[in-house]
Amino acid sequence: MQYRKASAYIIEQLNGIVGEDNVIVSLDQIEMLYGKQTQEKTWTAIPDVIVKAENSLQVSEIIKIANRERIIVTPTGPAGGAAPVRGGLVVSTERMNRILEIDPGNMYMVIEPGVTIVEVQKKARENNLRYAGDPFSAYCSFIEDISATSSGVKGAFIYSAASRHICGLEVVMPTGEIIAFGGKTVKNIAMYDMVRLIAGSEGTLGIVTKIWLKLMPAPRHCADLLIPFDDMLKAIRVVPMIMTAGIAPATLDFMDQETIKATGKYLSQSLPHSDAAAYIICTVEAKSKSQLEEEYEMIGGLCLENGAMDAFVANSLTAREGLWKVRKCYAEAISDLSPVCCRGDIVVPMSSISRALEEIKAIGTRHSCRIISCGPAGNGNIQCTILKEDRDDEEWEKLKIDVFDEIYKIICRLGGSFSGELGTAAKWAQCHENYSNPSASSVMKSIKKALDPNLILNPDRIADLCI
Amino acid sequence: MQYRKASAYIIEQLNGIVGEDNVIVSLDQIEMLYGKQTQEKTWTAIPDVIVKAENSLQVSEIIKIANRERIIVTPTGPAGGAAPVRGGLVVSTERMNRILEIDPGNMYMVIEPGVTIVEVQKKARENNLRYAGDPFSAYCSFIEDISATSSGVKGAFIYSAASRHICGLEVVMPTGEIIAFGGKTVKNIAMYDMVRLIAGSEGTLGIVTKIWLKLMPAPRHCADLLIPFDDMLKAIRVVPMIMTAGIAPATLDFMDQETIKATGKYLSQSLPHSDAAAYIICTVEAKSKSQLEEEYEMIGGLCLENGAMDAFVANSLTAREGLWKVRKCYAEAISDLSPVCCRGDIVVPMSSISRALEEIKAIGTRHSCRIISCGPAGNGNIQCTILKEDRDDEEWEKLKIDVFDEIYKIICRLGGSFSGELGTAAKWAQCHENYSNPSASSVMKSIKKALDPNLILNPDRIADLCI
Repeated sequence: MQYRKASAYIIEQLNGIVGEDNVIVSLDQIEMLYGKQTQEKTWTAIPDVIVKAENSLQVSEIIKIANRERIIVTPTGPAGGAAPVRGGLVVSTERMNRILEIDPGNMYMVIEPGVTIVEVQKKARENNLRYAGDPFSAYCSFIEDISATSSGVKGAFIYSAASRHICGLEVVMPTGEIIAFGGKTVKNIAMYDMVRLIAGSEGTLGIVTKIWLKLMPAPRHCADLLIPFDDMLKAIRVVPMIMTAGIAPATLDFMDQETIKATGKYLSQSLPHSDAAAYIICTVEAKSKSQLEEEYEMIGGLCLENGAMDAFVANSLTAREGLWKVRKCYAEAISDLSPVCCRGDIVVPMSSISRALEEIKAIGTRHSCRIISCGPAGNGNIQCTILKEDRDDEEWEKLKIDVFDEIYKIICRLGGSFSGELGTAAKWAQCHENYSNPSASSVMKSIKKALDPNLILNPDRIADLCI
Repeated sequence: MQYRKASAYIIEQLNGIVGEDNVIVSLDQIEMLYGKQTQEKTWTAIPDVIVKAENSLQVSEIIKIANRERIIVTPTGPAGGAAPVRGGLVVSTERMNRILEIDPGNMYMVIEPGVTIVEVQKKARENNLRYAGDPFSAYCSFIEDISATSSGVKGAFIYSAASRHICGLEVVMPTGEIIAFGGKTVKNIAMYDMVRLIAGSEGTLGIVTKIWLKLMPAPRHCADLLIPFDDMLKAIRVVPMIMTAGIAPATLDFMDQETIKATGKYLSQSLPHSDAAAYIICTVEAKSKSQLEEEYEMIGGLCLENGAMDAFVANSLTAREGLWKVRKCYAEAISDLSPVCCRGDIVVPMSSISRALEEIKAIGTRHSCRIISCGPAGNGNIQCTILKEDRDDEEWEKLKIDVFDEIYKIICRLGGSFSGELGTAAKWAQCHENYSNPSASSVMKSIKKALDPNLILNPDRIADLCI
């Protein structure tokens, strides 16, 4: 597929749609906004232009031009997470940041894609509700990330599980048509499940311009647990025990020793048992105080029986906030260790997490590189990060590919997948070819072609589509 | 689209694939199997042939022939729920009825599509687990119903919500290719969400031949409540109160007076407060006995404060079984009132259920016909049934269309949908045209055409596709 650049003539048309102030063409400004996202030279490129749309009509007008002129469109939101692979047009929905409606009686909220999770939670709390999103990744992020308007080198958290909490989407299709799928009813199967298809499509099937979020009653009582272990494998082996015991914590995260150290350093704070080999951090919720106690004592007990060094319970607001700070920042803390790093998001059947971690450790040893692991292990999800540190560019490019190739091979052998929670992102598109079922990939491509005949929307997210 | 009939030459080829015993061509036998499903002459037709496949390879061979020869294929399972609209080939997966694997450590089960929910639950229970499916419709049905291998005049329950509990599918695509999507990991977003797309496609995008079911720890303590009201609207107004109070019962059903009477008659049993205007029946689950008591007392209290006549708690196994019998059979009990009846499955925002029921009642009065309402109201879902009784065929056809046209108009006005839980089924395909967004329908059709270029799989489920 041959794509065009955004010419001066196109820029003029874009100015006409959103106003000059919302069309960014200066290389300096673009680099300022996209400097970090495009540092991975192999997989990213500076866009020709960034357009900030204010409503779905503007998005539609922009897409129609791009579709007619065959210009690649990369959708993004306030986090600016999406990085184009080959220039073209970046459409930002950061100005579409209003909460349009909250209906406590029916427990839903209608928002624009630029609204942040923090704002959603605040509004929900005011109405004695909450947005459950993906509790396993509650430490992040922007709504854009769950609604296919972004996904790139960073960002794109809480996709798939979050889509369960979306009951409707307004989408600008790749041809410019504005369509609403689903809506405020919890169940609606009169159509194919377009909401989930588009919510998980990483901006390849449409740009989301409005989101109907399902809300839930706010939990009445909560507590967090921090449980240090002197052995990573002991910690990780407790995870399936907790999950199958019927306790069902709302979140369950795992941090390895390097993550603990990085987090302590990042927060300039001495963490409890900061020499521990691993932490398990989880949140329990209950309808009464006595029930809450019962829950965290069961988890604490199970961990202590299975080699935990201690079990800290945070049930006051202050104590909980302290603990959440640790959980919320561990991803950033790791990135802070090395300005350039590479994160893989893998998922394996729960009982294979410890096996996967052992093998990943061995890969690190073989390649003499640090592989840092953490993540919402409660659903088999691990985030592995390798750091560039003082390697030169060439060595680093080779290391990344070799290490993740070995990791993905293990994951496939264990029945897992190379993308659990973070978006697959352009850089992993090739993985579809190497580690996925080619028939399944070809079905995905048929759908992409059916809805985006000129392949203008984020085509590099799907390997081979535009070669 | 022009379709062919299954000729003698085709039958011979089918005999070669599955053996003569598994190819049913005798009109008598077909009518015996399909007599009930095809009594709705307007929307159903006797198939040319029924083929009983034993494995995915056989299904694939059959589909390849049908695709080459342009013969319509209607997939079905042991319930025989699917009825073809224009003859052709019915592919039954009733012989594919094995539980292939259960993995308690990772909490999943792999089954063939002919396994029943009852068998799944039994196997899960033996492993201290359960299949949550859609708790709001736990009174039904066959796995075929949740996995797109069936959906027709009856059956096709628990589609969309059940798909949340499916983590993988092996599918024979309309071109005959066998593809596995997803698998045993809980999260997997390396691809578009094909599992949910196909699970909700009512057999229009592929025939499911293997299912990976997510399981959950078995609940430790359960109780059921039966709460009679002397006024239907009082009962229905309590539903959103319960749902927003953070109690979250596992199921919440509603029965109107006619449903109560029909159920009592069907079970030859005198039900408590059998003269009640409505029942609310719900199930609560908890991790401890004290917590369970707390839960059902909260619900009971809320109902009694809001006009309930009484609140019966069943917490022994025998008492619970008695109550579940009532919930499980209410749909059949209604069908039993009139050999010919027509059921619509609607969904509205929770707070609009009482408004919807008032308006539906008024429609019944205007048309002098009984409209019976019941269903898992906890998610805004209502099943409305109208009975043919002693009307002649012509009058009945007109009545059905008029009544449901009025009902659907109300539902649309209230922000609901004409298909909450039951499959849309061929007879409602036209609804897509009348009550859905035409742009959304056209997106659905593009996907259908991309995956099934000859439109052989269940084409009449989607209006206009094959005109």
